[in-house]
Amino acid sequence: MRRVKLIIIGGVAAGASAAAKARRCNEDAEIIMFEKGQDISYATCGLPYYLSGVIAKRDDLLITTGEFFKRRFNIDVRTGHDVQRIDRRARKIHFTDLATGASGEEGYDKLIVATGASALVPPVPGVDLPFVSALKTLEDTDRIFDYTKRSEPKHVVVVGGGLVGMEAAESFVMGGARVSVVELMSQVLTFLDPEMAVVVHHHLGEKGVDLYLSEGVSSIEQRNGKGFVKTDRDREVPADLVIMAVGIRPNVVLAREAGLAVGPSGGIAVDEFMQTKDPDIFAAGDCVESVNVVTGKPVLVPMGSAANKQGRAAGANAMGRRIAIKGFTGTVIVKVFDLAVGKTGITEREAVEEGVSPLVTYVLSGDHAGYYPGSETVRIKTISDRASRRLLGVQIIGKSGVDKRLDVMATAIYNGMSIDELLQLDLAYAPPYSAARDPIIYVGAVGQDYHEGDWEPITPAELHAKMKKGDDFALLDTRTGKELKETGIIPGAVHIPIDELRDRIDELDRERETILYCAVGMRSYLGNRILAMKGFKNVKTLTGGIESWTHGVRHQV
Amino acid sequence: MRRVKLIIIGGVAAGASAAAKARRCNEDAEIIMFEKGQDISYATCGLPYYLSGVIAKRDDLLITTGEFFKRRFNIDVRTGHDVQRIDRRARKIHFTDLATGASGEEGYDKLIVATGASALVPPVPGVDLPFVSALKTLEDTDRIFDYTKRSEPKHVVVVGGGLVGMEAAESFVMGGARVSVVELMSQVLTFLDPEMAVVVHHHLGEKGVDLYLSEGVSSIEQRNGKGFVKTDRDREVPADLVIMAVGIRPNVVLAREAGLAVGPSGGIAVDEFMQTKDPDIFAAGDCVESVNVVTGKPVLVPMGSAANKQGRAAGANAMGRRIAIKGFTGTVIVKVFDLAVGKTGITEREAVEEGVSPLVTYVLSGDHAGYYPGSETVRIKTISDRASRRLLGVQIIGKSGVDKRLDVMATAIYNGMSIDELLQLDLAYAPPYSAARDPIIYVGAVGQDYHEGDWEPITPAELHAKMKKGDDFALLDTRTGKELKETGIIPGAVHIPIDELRDRIDELDRERETILYCAVGMRSYLGNRILAMKGFKNVKTLTGGIESWTHGVRHQV
Repeated sequence: MRRVKLIIIGGVAAGASAAAKARRCNEDAEIIMFEKGQDISYATCGLPYYLSGVIAKRDDLLITTGEFFKRRFNIDVRTGHDVQRIDRRARKIHFTDLATGASGEEGYDKLIVATGASALVPPVPGVDLPFVSALKTLEDTDRIFDYTKRSEPKHVVVVGGGLVGMEAAESFVMGGARVSVVELMSQVLTFLDPEMAVVVHHHLGEKGVDLYLSEGVSSIEQRNGKGFVKTDRDREVPADLVIMAVGIRPNVVLAREAGLAVGPSGGIAVDEFMQTKDPDIFAAGDCVESVNVVTGKPVLVPMGSAANKQGRAAGANAMGRRIAIKGFTGTVIVKVFDLAVGKTGITEREAVEEGVSPLVTYVLSGDHAGYYPGSETVRIKTISDRASRRLLGVQIIGKSGVDKRLDVMATAIYNGMSIDELLQLDLAYAPPYSAARDPIIYVGAVGQDYHEGDWEPITPAELHAKMKKGDDFALLDTRTGKELKETGIIPGAVHIPIDELRDRIDELDRERETILYCAVGMRSYLGNRILAMKGFKNVKTLTGGIESWTHGVRHQV
Repeated sequence: MRRVKLIIIGGVAAGASAAAKARRCNEDAEIIMFEKGQDISYATCGLPYYLSGVIAKRDDLLITTGEFFKRRFNIDVRTGHDVQRIDRRARKIHFTDLATGASGEEGYDKLIVATGASALVPPVPGVDLPFVSALKTLEDTDRIFDYTKRSEPKHVVVVGGGLVGMEAAESFVMGGARVSVVELMSQVLTFLDPEMAVVVHHHLGEKGVDLYLSEGVSSIEQRNGKGFVKTDRDREVPADLVIMAVGIRPNVVLAREAGLAVGPSGGIAVDEFMQTKDPDIFAAGDCVESVNVVTGKPVLVPMGSAANKQGRAAGANAMGRRIAIKGFTGTVIVKVFDLAVGKTGITEREAVEEGVSPLVTYVLSGDHAGYYPGSETVRIKTISDRASRRLLGVQIIGKSGVDKRLDVMATAIYNGMSIDELLQLDLAYAPPYSAARDPIIYVGAVGQDYHEGDWEPITPAELHAKMKKGDDFALLDTRTGKELKETGIIPGAVHIPIDELRDRIDELDRERETILYCAVGMRSYLGNRILAMKGFKNVKTLTGGIESWTHGVRHQV
């Protein structure tokens, strides 16, 4: 076996996976892994939890070390080495040893680029003040950790309401600080459709987080020893510590300067074998462009789970294998205080952009049998294609059981299942784990009912739009009197409890468009059926009931 | 619309689902639901949890009432009515009102048989003693509840180690009793392969349950006011209370006497529309025969989740719809004290019976990131087809995250995924919920590695058989010295820590069959790769490592 020389640039998730896999495919290869930082393969995703103390020891973040990699995998690990240039013609990389400043070069037969991503730092005045930091690397985390130990910040401003922003907000609230989140968009967690994000906004409020939406940061300043963030609405938010969490950007400069293509998403272009246009160069992890399996479009998937898979494939393929990574469903989950919040597939907005006429449904249902203690409501928004019935995307929020339903839905979407086919799934049922009708089965039934012609949904946004337009329609609340007292009714609604509907049907006009609602949609669906079978021409049901309306409208108005 | 008359026999899970769905499909139908018991639609699956006090109130078990069904769905519910005969020619059923003893008849246009299943009570002497009871119905539960309140049983014997047996055992241990389980087979939970059941046996022991396997009950007796169970090994087990949980049998007498076919599984034969050979008669729930989607063979699926789906389809189809239930993957889950124990698809034994050459792998992996608190090991046995790669069955045991992986695997099996394709799933990852490499992804990688020719697994059972046969092979323990001190080695093994294997490779014979193991299989897999690439002709890895061996052999010997 000829001794192949493999160089890997980057040693966190994708790079370390690639190195280990390459070794398992070729015992004789010379493998060198360059990493700019001091550590390899540390738990990037765990950093916010280390700040909050949930992860008690810094060592727990260090999954492995260079010495271990040498011993176990016979990998030559060079931390503190910055690769500055790839010379494809000469098949060489040029590096600087950051400790000594010495530069050098190393030839390769095969190269894997795993340069990761960096925190985006917007060019805001004051962003270089000492109490401002990104939260992307272990170095960032150490700096923030030391700072909070030293100066116990009372007011923390998190700029950006994405994944890291949410985790950071929770972390500092747990630490006892007053936390504000400033977000340029009108919502946090932009992987959610707006009305689902409202559920998160509400929960942040419950947890004492001050949320400033649709506000940009215009400067970060310090006056009389006090820091603050100034927004483009002229708000001054006190800030002893500012976490910049506005997003990340793939590190592609090295690849681009070597003439490798960067795709429309901003990541390095690779095929399903993680191979660039240069057959000797592979790329993996946060720096590459992936494919969304629902749309077939290029996307960035900066997740540790993706990096591990891609790195493994790149490592194998650099050694001559042909392992494909077909793409990603686009699954995301984040813990926001007591809530798990996630999505898989595409959003309603994205579905519309794809030219699909989406069927949108909301299901609110117990994560396990209601009679067994601790059952929590899972809120599921499902987007499917009205024409093909294909499941396109799912958003789920709840206190328990969210990750399970997301993973099932991700598996269903990967396999091209239709919404009604979800009904066929034989999901594990026992009272501590699920309900006889799992939320997923409910989604399937709701979809099947639609495609059987048994109901026509209207979303809170659509209902609100109709109201604003001044359309003529009857709005029917089918709940009981007690519930109405607790939550009120939707303005303009007539109240006929579902159990009285059969007797009082003549109070309604069969020719007039009629929209029914209840708490989450089960009673109004029955009402919809009764009216339709009794000759009502145009009946709709508010999907997700007043529970969805409350959030939908809180967002709209 | 002609007024159709639908009669439903049985009002628990399938019957109640059928009635509600039939109403939603036909507002004008006359619908009568006969139920022998006093309650409809109660939570059969919750009964053991009511006995343990986990479910505090009896009312919580009553999901709905006859009055509610009348009011909400306009269903004529007749509890305490026993249907005794179906006269298909006259399209009539004959019933007895159990309260008055009066008999009557009722004509039908459409009929749904949802007669459920009954507890099997073996013809053992003493089975009718007052301290002996099944645990199937609410009446059984009330009787046991009253008995335990009155006489506080110190010794409880559970006969049968199936789902109900396990739940009952936990329930009475929680109540403070000394619990024995007597099981005729050599293992509990026969949906598991034997070596996986051993994990459950071990846990039952930890919880103080006395387990008597491969023992039948020969009699139940009472002497000097003391009860006991006598086994066919002449053991006398003290018993103040005996729960008979040896299984259930579908109630098919009514259907069979009406000339409806009963299938090979013992359930009423129906097509995918829940229709019997009589186009006016449908059947659903525990009394029907279903199809296993992996084998295509007839099976019983006596689960509340199945009953709800089948009842819904039967109700719709009796009203002229065509809703199909394609079959079941065979998913089961049960809580056994701190463990969740489940399977989906078929077992290794069943795969062999199907004529498949199964690839069997064990993966032990954290349910979420190890650095985030509370991570627990999930133990996954996977059975796939070596030829087609198709995933056939999965068994999972662990303290956390078991239900999630089962549901994903059930979805994967339903969709005919191959074991290596699991790698492509984009599962939700954040440290509180999962690991960057989810256990499912590990299973996919292990499968892909096999199909790439990177390793050849040997199961604990196969290794043990080789040892007994006296085969010549080298057994290599690749763990560290510290671990060896804790657990010991497999007899006959040579110890070379993985990190020394490269230097000490010449201590081994390249021509001799070599079997490697470590704790769970990761280091031995690396060792397998090193040896194979260094010219060893015949190398195997013990799948699941010593963790699986311990259980595998504890079972074998």
